[in-house]
Amino acid sequence: MKLLEDGVPLAELSIERIARTAGVGKAAIYRRWSGKEELFVDVVRTAEPPDPPLPGTSMRDDIVVLLESLRQRGLVTRTSAILHNVYAQMKQSPKIWAAYHDAVVAPRRRVGLDVLRRGRDNGELRADLDLELVNDLFVGPMLVRAIMRPDADLPEGLSEQIVDTVLEGLRPVSSPSVSSPTP
Amino acid sequence: MKLLEDGVPLAELSIERIARTAGVGKAAIYRRWSGKEELFVDVVRTAEPPDPPLPGTSMRDDIVVLLESLRQRGLVTRTSAILHNVYAQMKQSPKIWAAYHDAVVAPRRRVGLDVLRRGRDNGELRADLDLELVNDLFVGPMLVRAIMRPDADLPEGLSEQIVDTVLEGLRPVSSPSVSSPTP
Repeated sequence: MKLLEDGVPLAELSIERIARTAGVGKAAIYRRWSGKEELFVDVVRTAEPPDPPLPGTSMRDDIVVLLESLRQRGLVTRTSAILHNVYAQMKQSPKIWAAYHDAVVAPRRRVGLDVLRRGRDNGELRADLDLELVNDLFVGPMLVRAIMRPDADLPEGLSEQIVDTVLEGLRPVSSPSVSSPTP
Repeated sequence: MKLLEDGVPLAELSIERIARTAGVGKAAIYRRWSGKEELFVDVVRTAEPPDPPLPGTSMRDDIVVLLESLRQRGLVTRTSAILHNVYAQMKQSPKIWAAYHDAVVAPRRRVGLDVLRRGRDNGELRADLDLELVNDLFVGPMLVRAIMRPDADLPEGLSEQIVDTVLEGLRPVSSPSVSSPTP
């Protein structure tokens, strides 16, 4: 973390230099991490907000919490020069990006798909939907704002707004039961 | 293009070197482009598939065409080493990224928002929706697949599937009019 704070580029972060900065031998590092990639991914995970527990009250509520954690990560990345810098550098190293993907991104995606599967089983989702696509429908809008458009708004309530709008659809309600109360 | 094909990094692409490769003087370059950023953005636009004409038959059809062009761009980027390389390098130069954003991304976004406004006016969209959000709901899932997950499927029909699923919503149809035909 100190080396990253000092602005040392990822390419120059050798295990040797990390060990020297930490005042330990290289062997001490290799006892915990098999290489630079694994160590780096661990550092990033420590800097990121932790993954939140899911309330489990409904698919809708769980997805809101998952999107909310993406929103928080987006906000943190905007204010944390280190994280911002780290993500940018990570993308340029296919090996580190793959390690981050396997350790962080893929497990999160699996959690999301599990939530959607429960939603399909309990009737919150139509049974005919492709869950991989549904996952992208929820996650895509938040990722686009949080990562691809660093100037975009990430207001409070955005997670709920995305989830409820995607669930509801965009078409005008054509049936006469527009204002009928639901239990 | 030749310099990019030869793998010359963006940082080394000076106007001087471009002029030398093209066998012209620097003044000839500066008569058409005010600087390296503008020239580079023009090169990228030439390499990208052109923006498609909109059918104008409905908001739904226009949005499908806009997503389809993102899908095509994603496919081209996967097969074109030059474009892939160029995007990666562009992201690292805030000045060039800003020039590309102003020349390409922002106009496309304005076209999308115009289409959505027409859809709200003609009743394809509910009147209470935030069109900036609606735009992200359509574009986000495609961008996530095309750009952020280079291993994700971009099958034919994906544009239609995203647009129709987002319009329809994900909830089971609860009214008895499930199979009623619509004109």
